[in-house]
Amino acid sequence: MAEVRERARRESVQDELNEVIRLLDKGELEEELVHKQVGPKQDLVDALTHKQALTRLQNKLDELHPADVAYILEGLPLDRRLQVWDLVKAERDGEILLEVSDAVRESLIGSMDRQELLAAAEQLDTDEIAALAPDLPQEVVQDILDSLDVQNRGRLQSALAYPDDSVGALMDYEMVTVREDIDLEVVLRYLRRLDALPDHTDKLFVVTRDDDLRGVLPLRKLLVSDAEAMVEAVMAKEVVTFHVEQSADEAAQAFERYDLVTAPVVDGQGKLVGRLTVDAVMDFIRAQANEEALKLAGLQEEEDLFASVWKSAKNRWPWIVLNLGTAFVASRVIGVFEGTIEKLVALAALMPIVAGIGGNSGNQTSSLITRGLALGLINPAHTDRLIKKEVAIGLLNGLVWGSVLGIIAYLLYGNVFLGIVMTAAMLLNLLVAALVGIFIPITLHRMGRDPAMGSSVLLTATTDSMGFLIFLGLAALFLV
Amino acid sequence: MAEVRERARRESVQDELNEVIRLLDKGELEEELVHKQVGPKQDLVDALTHKQALTRLQNKLDELHPADVAYILEGLPLDRRLQVWDLVKAERDGEILLEVSDAVRESLIGSMDRQELLAAAEQLDTDEIAALAPDLPQEVVQDILDSLDVQNRGRLQSALAYPDDSVGALMDYEMVTVREDIDLEVVLRYLRRLDALPDHTDKLFVVTRDDDLRGVLPLRKLLVSDAEAMVEAVMAKEVVTFHVEQSADEAAQAFERYDLVTAPVVDGQGKLVGRLTVDAVMDFIRAQANEEALKLAGLQEEEDLFASVWKSAKNRWPWIVLNLGTAFVASRVIGVFEGTIEKLVALAALMPIVAGIGGNSGNQTSSLITRGLALGLINPAHTDRLIKKEVAIGLLNGLVWGSVLGIIAYLLYGNVFLGIVMTAAMLLNLLVAALVGIFIPITLHRMGRDPAMGSSVLLTATTDSMGFLIFLGLAALFLV
Repeated sequence: MAEVRERARRESVQDELNEVIRLLDKGELEEELVHKQVGPKQDLVDALTHKQALTRLQNKLDELHPADVAYILEGLPLDRRLQVWDLVKAERDGEILLEVSDAVRESLIGSMDRQELLAAAEQLDTDEIAALAPDLPQEVVQDILDSLDVQNRGRLQSALAYPDDSVGALMDYEMVTVREDIDLEVVLRYLRRLDALPDHTDKLFVVTRDDDLRGVLPLRKLLVSDAEAMVEAVMAKEVVTFHVEQSADEAAQAFERYDLVTAPVVDGQGKLVGRLTVDAVMDFIRAQANEEALKLAGLQEEEDLFASVWKSAKNRWPWIVLNLGTAFVASRVIGVFEGTIEKLVALAALMPIVAGIGGNSGNQTSSLITRGLALGLINPAHTDRLIKKEVAIGLLNGLVWGSVLGIIAYLLYGNVFLGIVMTAAMLLNLLVAALVGIFIPITLHRMGRDPAMGSSVLLTATTDSMGFLIFLGLAALFLV
Repeated sequence: MAEVRERARRESVQDELNEVIRLLDKGELEEELVHKQVGPKQDLVDALTHKQALTRLQNKLDELHPADVAYILEGLPLDRRLQVWDLVKAERDGEILLEVSDAVRESLIGSMDRQELLAAAEQLDTDEIAALAPDLPQEVVQDILDSLDVQNRGRLQSALAYPDDSVGALMDYEMVTVREDIDLEVVLRYLRRLDALPDHTDKLFVVTRDDDLRGVLPLRKLLVSDAEAMVEAVMAKEVVTFHVEQSADEAAQAFERYDLVTAPVVDGQGKLVGRLTVDAVMDFIRAQANEEALKLAGLQEEEDLFASVWKSAKNRWPWIVLNLGTAFVASRVIGVFEGTIEKLVALAALMPIVAGIGGNSGNQTSSLITRGLALGLINPAHTDRLIKKEVAIGLLNGLVWGSVLGIIAYLLYGNVFLGIVMTAAMLLNLLVAALVGIFIPITLHRMGRDPAMGSSVLLTATTDSMGFLIFLGLAALFLV
């Protein structure tokens, strides 16, 4: 990766985005003028000003950090985004493509031809090419593979073979290695012969001639230790090490827990094959959190803010269809009790409250359980305590808020029995909510599914249908 | 902070938790035996075994990384948690308290007396004490202040004065500084005189005699540069620098964007006062994401999985009361149309579908907008495009799924007009959902509120009430 250019952030990135939009507005005005073929002097002056605006825009883009250019591209509608993309220097395309979101990357890559894509890939390391590869046309990936030397081709091929969520897919190959039987003076001399140390290097990896990992030599130690000491004496031997096939999620948790900056990655034989860095891990965590937030809201995948209507609609349909299904079931539950509602129409007005509060309360429980499961804090030995606690809260809430609603229902409709049915239904539905709030995430987890995804729909479907069933059922039995 | 002990993760932390629970089970059995005062030889042998179990547990805890002990404490019910906490060596209390969640920290601190708390604080740096202070009794904080030397007391006082979400509250004071007018050989000799470099040190800060920040000297450069070069010639002068009063959120975004490991923090006069490290930033990001996820699900604050029923219930009430309020409003909207429902009871069964799908669809829109706002991608210049896009999707979805439901309603009830009203109501409510899905988060954002929090409740309240109003209103006008 290109060295991170550290720069004073005189203006915030948002200001940069506003500036780009301003320059684009000027530039667009210019195009209009050229189109109209208007001649007079004043217009010519305007056109020149606008031409300058685009040049200024190009200069600004050249100055910006790739991550900032990526940010600006995300914030622009498709036509303006491609206009800006054309102004970006070709040799920076690769690093910017790495920074944008999947959805925006797709739109940018779609606008590039084979030659441009090849040129962009040429600027990147193998691990970075591997990150882009899923979005590149198959033949471009083949071209890239053909253009690499043997070592890099091998690396790229194995990087492509690792599953998306494995350590292998996140690691890079920029490790600096030393032997254990030399002294620190030699290490320092060796380092001084290098042009630069890779980004984020906070430790050197100590390996044998066969790449067996022996330990790590933190720069923090190298710099304060006696130059005559041997690497073996100074290096840390107990090292947090990751396996190339380990889940990236586990690695991310370990990075947070042990505050790591880099860590070695080994293969099945304990040989060093790469390294994980904190920035790759942070990107992974952020991407995961994003994905989860959007999935919770019912979006299939990350959606470009400015995607086409048709594409966006398709992204949202599976969720709508799922909810239509569960709403239909709840509707049929009500349908069974149409006779009861006809006799006491107040039921129709009160039933959504019972169903809705059940859903809210159940979601509180299932969110806590889901979080506990994600952190691995929910131990089978303690499940019974959790159940008792949540059931007790359900009882308490059911009594308190059920009574409040029962009294309101009585006051509104002057029917004591309606009030009692309301209270009883709230109580029962909150108990149902507590139980399904625990069991749905735990069951999904045991089935190897992500409980964060399905829990909410399944839970709301249950509390809706059960809410209507309990409330209308009790009413049918005792009221009408 | 104590040096991060890097160790081979032979067993995962989850296994450690299981092992602790097993040892606790054995230990508890022992207590029972002692209690029963049973004498025979076999029981004595058992008691010895169980005594050994607790000793083994203590040894295990001593070996574990503080973050792992914290993890285990999170996963235990209160009684067992305090039992384990008693087994932890007093000098490790401080670093473990830093690692646990707020809710668990409260339970641990509650079990400690003043002397124990003071002893725990003694092991910590000022920035770490500042992080604990909000959870400590006032008199303990005063005792700690009294025990510090002048420099550290000043630091702690100013750290306590920074708002929770400012850079000042996140920074530490472990920076290594050098002057610009010396050569690298002198720097290397100076470093060698230190016992150790602070955790995460990836750069030295170059300052004047008055602590004016002049630049940074990355270790990566120090190690590869000629020893005779001057610091001034090698150092980076354009540095991502944070201001002590800047928002932590902005700093976190910059850390991610520019892949930083550490960065200098300056005061209003440009003087170096501290540094930010990637681990503090990651903790901040994680804590924020957690809080957001729990608030979205309607929990006031982070909740200890094993908190008391009473405490948990109170944590959940504000959300339930809020939803009761909105559900009540929706219920009164239905109440207005009781006469209409009495005449055509099918309306009662169909109305929750119209309201529910409106809520789902609106939440998709508002999640996208909320995310765009959080990233600063929603520019006033493009709001009209977003509105057009979302309204178009609402129209499309309304036509497609409204028609599907209209046909189903017709098939179920044999009433063509009911089907038409259903389709029209869906279409209108999805338009309402699209508009409120855009305007609610944007308005909250303009008011300086976090759109992630209130959007969902406000949106669902609107789509519910409007869904009932539109559907029942159309039915009252055209059907009965």
